[in-house]
Amino acid sequence: MINDRFKDMLNEKSVIRSISERASARKREIGADHVFDFSIGNPNVACPSQFTDAMLDLYSTEPPHALHGYSPSTGILSVRQAMADSLNRRFGMDYEAMHLFPTSGATGALAHAFRAVTKPGDEIVTFAPFFPEYQPYVEGTGATLTVVPPDTERFQIDFDAFERTLNPKVAAVLINTPNNPSGTVYSAETLEALADMLRAKQREFGHDIFLISDEPYREIVFDGAEQPYPARFYDNTLTCYSFSKSLSLPGERIGYVAVNPRATDADLLVPMFAQISRTIGHNCPSSSMQLAVARVLDDTSDLSIYETNMNIIYDALVDLGFTVQRPGGTFYIFPKALEEDANAFARKAMDYDLYMVPSDSFGMPGYLRISYCLETDQVRRGAERLREFVTEVYGG
Amino acid sequence: MINDRFKDMLNEKSVIRSISERASARKREIGADHVFDFSIGNPNVACPSQFTDAMLDLYSTEPPHALHGYSPSTGILSVRQAMADSLNRRFGMDYEAMHLFPTSGATGALAHAFRAVTKPGDEIVTFAPFFPEYQPYVEGTGATLTVVPPDTERFQIDFDAFERTLNPKVAAVLINTPNNPSGTVYSAETLEALADMLRAKQREFGHDIFLISDEPYREIVFDGAEQPYPARFYDNTLTCYSFSKSLSLPGERIGYVAVNPRATDADLLVPMFAQISRTIGHNCPSSSMQLAVARVLDDTSDLSIYETNMNIIYDALVDLGFTVQRPGGTFYIFPKALEEDANAFARKAMDYDLYMVPSDSFGMPGYLRISYCLETDQVRRGAERLREFVTEVYGG
Repeated sequence: MINDRFKDMLNEKSVIRSISERASARKREIGADHVFDFSIGNPNVACPSQFTDAMLDLYSTEPPHALHGYSPSTGILSVRQAMADSLNRRFGMDYEAMHLFPTSGATGALAHAFRAVTKPGDEIVTFAPFFPEYQPYVEGTGATLTVVPPDTERFQIDFDAFERTLNPKVAAVLINTPNNPSGTVYSAETLEALADMLRAKQREFGHDIFLISDEPYREIVFDGAEQPYPARFYDNTLTCYSFSKSLSLPGERIGYVAVNPRATDADLLVPMFAQISRTIGHNCPSSSMQLAVARVLDDTSDLSIYETNMNIIYDALVDLGFTVQRPGGTFYIFPKALEEDANAFARKAMDYDLYMVPSDSFGMPGYLRISYCLETDQVRRGAERLREFVTEVYGG
Repeated sequence: MINDRFKDMLNEKSVIRSISERASARKREIGADHVFDFSIGNPNVACPSQFTDAMLDLYSTEPPHALHGYSPSTGILSVRQAMADSLNRRFGMDYEAMHLFPTSGATGALAHAFRAVTKPGDEIVTFAPFFPEYQPYVEGTGATLTVVPPDTERFQIDFDAFERTLNPKVAAVLINTPNNPSGTVYSAETLEALADMLRAKQREFGHDIFLISDEPYREIVFDGAEQPYPARFYDNTLTCYSFSKSLSLPGERIGYVAVNPRATDADLLVPMFAQISRTIGHNCPSSSMQLAVARVLDDTSDLSIYETNMNIIYDALVDLGFTVQRPGGTFYIFPKALEEDANAFARKAMDYDLYMVPSDSFGMPGYLRISYCLETDQVRRGAERLREFVTEVYGG
């Protein structure tokens, strides 16, 4: 008996994916050089050579049984210790190996974090604009995703709107900084105010509220700035991470959850994650991949291209009269469309071979997500094409 | 608010794991050579050199972006085609790439198969003795696992008991051949009778009943025999596979679901699997691992050691008067304990540094699972130790 719920999901195709498929079709038609595909967030820089060297060394020197044998369901101990050490060194935390849980990317990390600290029927609160996949990720647990309307001024948090949303059914708050799609980096002030609000509401409601911090873009920050580390501001924090962006390994599905040692039941959460794995078809991420990333935890790909590209697009958008916030990080920028219906805008742009994602599914209609993980020359020519499009269609 | 369901699971520790932990502790005490750890099914032969060579070649020659970039959520097309070709060649099937879905091991394969063809409240039927992890795997979907009592004679299927179990709420039947823990290989006669029964019940109940065939031990068969391919007998079959045993890669989490092209909605099932992934925190297995196994689909590790070891243990057990079925495959054997309570038997054996798993959690009390993926010399000395134990304690 085919499950109708999943059959019905086939009709709710991801907007990002369907625009990217149209872009790919067009590339086959007229050549990739002539299509400006700003739709998908697929890292375009190589992984660091240190990673490749680490893996080649492991394959050449480790006995196959040590490299490919079962990992404990909580992850390989030496890998967890190395992850803890790296976070402690970089962010002044005091994680032990027991607080780290290697996962299959951030998707796997969130799947475990959500299930550990919420139960079916609970609410998980997030902030618009947000990554559309949060919706199925949360629905899959039986909890519901509640969305706080955006602060359209600076894309930080509208605390009045946030406070109105909070109620005793809220078990977790999900943040994503640097943010997909807006590129916003939450400031220390925002994180401090968020922590204050959560502590007050924990007292008021008489139960824990966990902060689940999704941080795959943590290392892609601009202007020499840094992303303040959210777990430093709030004890009940589960930090979800992926090496997809920092090491350009999106296909390898490797990341972790880090449990703040000061969280409620901090010692139980990782063993609980291992139990959750048994119910959702996980086990652990690839053993060789765990061992390889453990050797390059403080390295990244050359991420500077994203800032170079951002500046080109940002300057072009400002010049063309777009309302747009300068991104603090990620490889996205999020301008307001030049007409109310961003879908109409995106459709017209396709006539100029410009592919951008309208923002409706990000919980904030009227905007566009432009992903600039492309060669810089392609971005430069794309900005020129955007100028043509805007001038001809909107008389910019 | 910590989820009590997963917190409670911490108290239901896996028997296999806790015995294996005791064996490991004892090894640290007296040295690994003196402990006979028959508890865990962890392949002890190296992966084939073809696999290592394939991966080294990929890392040395493929551009990082092609090797580590996002895989489509249904898997890499060339990999799916290669998997289909290999199955068609070996088992006379007619899979196309669209019927193959790469997964994170058999655990991931089962998680997708269960959810696609059952809904919460449905029943999934399996046969004792069975792999204890089926319980949390099925419960995690909201369906319930119903267990058919064993055919203790030959460990095939007791069809009278099976028919009594079948009712309109049964949406799927789960088989595991070659079987963990009994080592039984289902014969063509068994599979034919099973298919006949399922076809009759589909007509009677007026809905599909899917056969979910869990086949990680498919290539470990003895006496020059072959495991008949279950999907050849029944159209509505989802074949779940893992390379953990055939290629000795249990830590790498790589496998697949193959949808019989003649199954109901065969064309929809793989796209549905990709939707299911979004709700349980998957994405796809490691991209480089997909590409590497695709190059060695018809290869295996040197699996002959398992047959050598089986014969040593089987002969010793028979000689000592155990009631035991000669395994047709796997790296397990499943004798009846020499007293009614297999837990008591296993506890007493530990005084002789023999570690075996009592069978209660396999749905069939009174037996022992002996896993013989060890060096042959260790198995030989373990058989001697077993003789001492049985003679001294049971006057064998």
